[in-house]
Amino acid sequence: MLDRNELLLSATSAARAGGEILLRYFRDGVTIRDKSESGGKTYDLVSDADLESEQAIANFLRTRYPDHELLGEESLAGGATDAEHLWIIDPLDGTNNFAHRLPHFAVSIAYYHRGEPVVGAVFNPVRDEMFTAIKGSGAAINGVAASVCNAESLGKVLIGCGFYYDRGDMMRSTLAAIEDFFGQDIHGIRRFGTASLDLCQVGCGQFGGFFEYQLSPWDFAAGRLFVTEAGGQVSDAKGADLPLETTSLVASNGKLHEAMLEITKQHHP
Amino acid sequence: MLDRNELLLSATSAARAGGEILLRYFRDGVTIRDKSESGGKTYDLVSDADLESEQAIANFLRTRYPDHELLGEESLAGGATDAEHLWIIDPLDGTNNFAHRLPHFAVSIAYYHRGEPVVGAVFNPVRDEMFTAIKGSGAAINGVAASVCNAESLGKVLIGCGFYYDRGDMMRSTLAAIEDFFGQDIHGIRRFGTASLDLCQVGCGQFGGFFEYQLSPWDFAAGRLFVTEAGGQVSDAKGADLPLETTSLVASNGKLHEAMLEITKQHHP
Repeated sequence: MLDRNELLLSATSAARAGGEILLRYFRDGVTIRDKSESGGKTYDLVSDADLESEQAIANFLRTRYPDHELLGEESLAGGATDAEHLWIIDPLDGTNNFAHRLPHFAVSIAYYHRGEPVVGAVFNPVRDEMFTAIKGSGAAINGVAASVCNAESLGKVLIGCGFYYDRGDMMRSTLAAIEDFFGQDIHGIRRFGTASLDLCQVGCGQFGGFFEYQLSPWDFAAGRLFVTEAGGQVSDAKGADLPLETTSLVASNGKLHEAMLEITKQHHP
Repeated sequence: MLDRNELLLSATSAARAGGEILLRYFRDGVTIRDKSESGGKTYDLVSDADLESEQAIANFLRTRYPDHELLGEESLAGGATDAEHLWIIDPLDGTNNFAHRLPHFAVSIAYYHRGEPVVGAVFNPVRDEMFTAIKGSGAAINGVAASVCNAESLGKVLIGCGFYYDRGDMMRSTLAAIEDFFGQDIHGIRRFGTASLDLCQVGCGQFGGFFEYQLSPWDFAAGRLFVTEAGGQVSDAKGADLPLETTSLVASNGKLHEAMLEITKQHHP
């Protein structure tokens, strides 16, 4: 087994390298182009920043760990999810925010050993906030321990959510679930547009919970470890263990997990 | 007529005084208590920070303009909306975010002359961003000119929204409108939870538009001027001139206004 602190240092170093590239593009302005549309329409935007960040991260990790596999959205589609050593990378989570100059996006990097999360780093370069987690050793923000909130009822919390861009069943399920959450007297719903940071906001106790009906592994690979290491709970939207593939996801402070699942199960597309 | 630059300086000075108080409480941690519930349930939260910020702003303005009226949510309910000189104040917009330690809240201050907006300032203390507008003289962020985006179709933008906390018709109307916006291929919906900043994000071109079915004058008094001075358009959700009272609101870059109204009119509660 590789040293976990060293793995985390690699994750944070790579995340910072990617984040600095993003920040430079963000401040200088960024050229946007629509992602090539293959088959159905896609509503994602891709920018040079995304690709350059990915390249910097991949180069860093490949130099340090030439025998490890990499998995990500763009050119990193190859890594096997059950590999002995797997790095799961989102070089720009919150592309839509980034493209519209909203200062809320992140780099997400996680190391998985045979399909199990070991370390995770989510970096918000605008706020210079590094969210880190090591399996069994807790979660931290810029080195300070993080923990979920203590709320025992939905009536005491904000709930974060995400919309998968299908414009169909998935969207309607999300809207129906939001209505039911309001019915449980939540303080409010939030939609910030960056899943890795949404998960960190659960881990920091800002959100009582978060749900989204479709996420990819690179969206949640680091953030899900942050939540559990901060004392929270993560599952799919029906309550099953989170698979390392495209899946629905519910994250909470633990105490609210059953109450959230009651709603997300009912509206699962 | 009072000098507009001097009025703006008063607005920004007062906003900064309030914002510094908010920031101190935010960093030190804040004691939350539920707002007293009169009749129906309210989901707002009030904190000492809110009241201390209001007091600092009110003291500043009363000392400088002893004959002017003040209007706000808490102890400032007195000001007549058609007063010759009226300051409209939200000492903490985004109370819910603030209470849950989400770093996205603002102070909003506007000066109205006989019911018409003359100057507005919205201050985001966490990001140290001062959004300013003077009637007829444009909008700026920290002194740099701001303008709305150029998008000519909803398929090119993010749309911000707000939910009034009625949990009834108003909420269902908002959800139905969101569904229709997705049907128009928007890049995404955002719910950040601070109306004054949502409006500034329209004025800065980050959002193509924003809508909410119920807002109070202190929520929009400054931000609506920021939008129009940045080249955008503001109306109620049916397209009528915005009244200086509790109202629905649609803000856009102008080019998208009719397309937004088609949706918001249809679902108006």
